[in-house]
Amino acid sequence: MIHDTRNQHSVEITRLIELLSKVQGFGPKSARRAVLHLLKKRDLLMKPLGEAILDAARNVKTCEVCGNLDTISPCTICRSEKRDRGVMCIVAEVSDLWAFERAGGFRGIYHVLGGLLSALDGITPNDLGIPQLIERIEKERIEEVVLALSATIDGTSTSHYIADLLQGRGVKVTRLSHGLPIGGELDAIDEGTLLLALKSRLEI
Amino acid sequence: MIHDTRNQHSVEITRLIELLSKVQGFGPKSARRAVLHLLKKRDLLMKPLGEAILDAARNVKTCEVCGNLDTISPCTICRSEKRDRGVMCIVAEVSDLWAFERAGGFRGIYHVLGGLLSALDGITPNDLGIPQLIERIEKERIEEVVLALSATIDGTSTSHYIADLLQGRGVKVTRLSHGLPIGGELDAIDEGTLLLALKSRLEI
Repeated sequence: MIHDTRNQHSVEITRLIELLSKVQGFGPKSARRAVLHLLKKRDLLMKPLGEAILDAARNVKTCEVCGNLDTISPCTICRSEKRDRGVMCIVAEVSDLWAFERAGGFRGIYHVLGGLLSALDGITPNDLGIPQLIERIEKERIEEVVLALSATIDGTSTSHYIADLLQGRGVKVTRLSHGLPIGGELDAIDEGTLLLALKSRLEI
Repeated sequence: MIHDTRNQHSVEITRLIELLSKVQGFGPKSARRAVLHLLKKRDLLMKPLGEAILDAARNVKTCEVCGNLDTISPCTICRSEKRDRGVMCIVAEVSDLWAFERAGGFRGIYHVLGGLLSALDGITPNDLGIPQLIERIEKERIEEVVLALSATIDGTSTSHYIADLLQGRGVKVTRLSHGLPIGGELDAIDEGTLLLALKSRLEI
């Protein structure tokens, strides 16, 4: 029965708009629109969504082995008997792991760093658990490590840092190839990528 | 413990992404990003958001008098003693009512049609409760009706339809003025508005 005096929304609506506008991808305007849309689809969308958010908040955890998000730990991928335990793909974020799984085709296991080394942001190897990663690679007798980090300054310096630590340990270290995205228009690609694609050209 | 076989997300995460991608303003990609963002801010954002959605779904209702959304019916605006009950602003959607309230300055009451007349979509006066609206205007002895409908074909034909019904009933019927938006660059305005603004020019 308490109402916001600034505008005529009930506190429930005001609070919902405020929270929703903090979610990545939303601002105050799109949050207001979404709230009206949700209120129109109360039983089909709004209530199930509220419950799904609370369910996930309660049940999703970080996998203690690889850093993936799942309702079980170790996660489904770490438990799966169908995965090749000799090949480990190292990614910065869970979203990168999801991208590989959507793409399909990679049948190895993962390690999520949770970020990239950054002198600017003061992110150190310890912050990313790199000592534990090296330990994991040795303990699990990984044969190949794929460094699937972004082609940015932080990404490449993190790749080099890990590759250096793995030198002489009998582990093959690879990185993703660079070049033209499939289906990408040549004139839409940035110049750096274009030159790189030229430099690493292959005979056909 | 049941997992989606298509990708390696747990059902909880898959379901949340699916529901969120149905919310206006979201697609599958932005929903995935938002879910990861929410899972990182579990206590500060995710749980409060889930609860706020369920709270609003349970408690927000449509005002039986004007069609506004509020936790009480009649709504706060309809109950308020500070509003001028002689002036009624007719809007198509609750979002329009919210826009007026954000702008401030209008101290009358509202009526939300819930849409616009449309031959194409088969929306009739009965669908919008226009007979009940006319009844309400007479019963509440409204002195002025402001038709605040959009300047589209459906908006203007709805305005004309209501204005015609109110003719001869002693009610002043007005509509919003058309013209240049405040702060609008002249060359960013569509030509229709520009010509209209020229036609309805005022002496300064």
